[in-house]
Amino acid sequence: MKLTALLIAIEVGGTVAFATSGLIEAMRKRMDVVGVFSVAFVSAFGGGTVRDLLLDRRPLFWVEHEAYLWLVFAMVITAPWWLKAALRDAGSRLMDGADAFGLGLFAISGTSIAVAAGMSPGVSVLMGATTAIVGGVARDVLCNEVPKVYQDHRPYALCAVAGSLAFLGLGELGLGSELASLAGIAVATGSRLLAIAFDWQLPGWRLPQK
Amino acid sequence: MKLTALLIAIEVGGTVAFATSGLIEAMRKRMDVVGVFSVAFVSAFGGGTVRDLLLDRRPLFWVEHEAYLWLVFAMVITAPWWLKAALRDAGSRLMDGADAFGLGLFAISGTSIAVAAGMSPGVSVLMGATTAIVGGVARDVLCNEVPKVYQDHRPYALCAVAGSLAFLGLGELGLGSELASLAGIAVATGSRLLAIAFDWQLPGWRLPQK
Amino acid sequence: MKLTALLIAIEVGGTVAFATSGLIEAMRKRMDVVGVFSVAFVSAFGGGTVRDLLLDRRPLFWVEHEAYLWLVFAMVITAPWWLKAALRDAGSRLMDGADAFGLGLFAISGTSIAVAAGMSPGVSVLMGATTAIVGGVARDVLCNEVPKVYQDHRPYALCAVAGSLAFLGLGELGLGSELASLAGIAVATGSRLLAIAFDWQLPGWRLPQK
Repeated sequence: MKLTALLIAIEVGGTVAFATSGLIEAMRKRMDVVGVFSVAFVSAFGGGTVRDLLLDRRPLFWVEHEAYLWLVFAMVITAPWWLKAALRDAGSRLMDGADAFGLGLFAISGTSIAVAAGMSPGVSVLMGATTAIVGGVARDVLCNEVPKVYQDHRPYALCAVAGSLAFLGLGELGLGSELASLAGIAVATGSRLLAIAFDWQLPGWRLPQK
Repeated sequence: MKLTALLIAIEVGGTVAFATSGLIEAMRKRMDVVGVFSVAFVSAFGGGTVRDLLLDRRPLFWVEHEAYLWLVFAMVITAPWWLKAALRDAGSRLMDGADAFGLGLFAISGTSIAVAAGMSPGVSVLMGATTAIVGGVARDVLCNEVPKVYQDHRPYALCAVAGSLAFLGLGELGLGSELASLAGIAVATGSRLLAIAFDWQLPGWRLPQK
Repeated sequence: MKLTALLIAIEVGGTVAFATSGLIEAMRKRMDVVGVFSVAFVSAFGGGTVRDLLLDRRPLFWVEHEAYLWLVFAMVITAPWWLKAALRDAGSRLMDGADAFGLGLFAISGTSIAVAAGMSPGVSVLMGATTAIVGGVARDVLCNEVPKVYQDHRPYALCAVAGSLAFLGLGELGLGSELASLAGIAVATGSRLLAIAFDWQLPGWRLPQK
């Protein structure tokens, strides 16, 4: 019961963080209210929607939990009032933290939904990463940018993969699925926060010169 | 019977208008025949396809009504002959009108298909707007542009939403579904035509300065 | 038995060629390992995934044949070692050949899967072309480019269509499906190789001047 409440709180936080990233990006592109709403929506729900489409899972998670739709709707409508304060007072630290929690939760929820749908471990880890990053990729494609998560060189998707592997490994070792979920989220979110704090860099890959 | 014929005429007009917008955009980018065909096809059928995928609805509407595929195919093949005349004689007024009718019809058909699939009113309105705008969004993404519908600042998606709300509200009040459909299309198409005629503007949203 | 082995060899070759095209494009954009893996994966599997989604076909082909996932994974991980040699020794000729074989195989497999799913000849040819080109289109969209296959002016998708038509036509004439498949692949791949060798050009379509 308490655990469920905790997971819901993390999910709300992650959804808010992902939607906010879309909202800010859309405003930077001087989009109108339709663009801002669309990009915020795609950022928050794109990853889970693609996961549900690939797994042929209905109802889609935002049809099942329609409250999330209305949450993002309310966020966009009220953005002129809270966005300035959020940007000034909290800088990007609050956003980075919420985003890291969203990353962990979305990765583990994607992985465990794929396992429940009978997918192999490899495909399940891929579904976890898909759930975590596709929203941001779609946001950047709609804003006509190369996806940041592909060029950032700070581990992001790899943290999702690490969390998913921890979740699957601990489950294999006999840990209950709730504890394994928490541990997986901790690994994904924790490694992401460490990557930000210590500015870990992935090696760049260059095309060999002929 | 007469009503069905009217709706089919509107649907043909909307499909032609959406396909033409893709065709023109692809030619501006100097695409070859494959690009022109692909972008015209995506513009005309993208919104309905995404709606059908999200609702898990098969056969897809363009598999069920394959004649629309061949209509767009014939349009693209014959474009060198009619496009010049269309651009010169009618300016963009004919296009704007056909596009506004397409907007209205696609919004109401999307909403009513979602209602028939058991979706809530909120999700149904979203499906209507998705049906109406996703084709144009995909067209612009393929042409490597920020979607026009997100930056236009003239109401477009909002007209679709207004029409869908009118359709649902009148149905709720006991109006037959055919009359409610016509009223919804009238609201969406009419408000769009007014927005063009009087140059209505949506407020721009800017990121607050820090 | 021998035929199956041949088809698998062609499929492996096509998958490798498509993944390599994504890998090179991602490196040109200086993406990190996550970007390189994502773009390689989307290039290799995007077309078949969209085909499976449109036909509502599960398990997805890369869930059914998970070995292809691991093949691309291994390719990306080992790219720093083999890519230089591949670029230097073979130029783009090896790539063009493998890509042409992939084009043929993906077109025919897409068409025959659509026929098996009860689609009409027109829709089946469209599914063949979709299977063959959507991976490359998605690769270019993720790299923030106009899809090359839309602007190349050298026949590519048209070769896929020619092969699919040959496959359907020969099947209609009573040829066995294996022989018709081989003939279709030969037409698609052969016409593509001829288009490269003789630099065939599609006419450019320009917007008429007003």
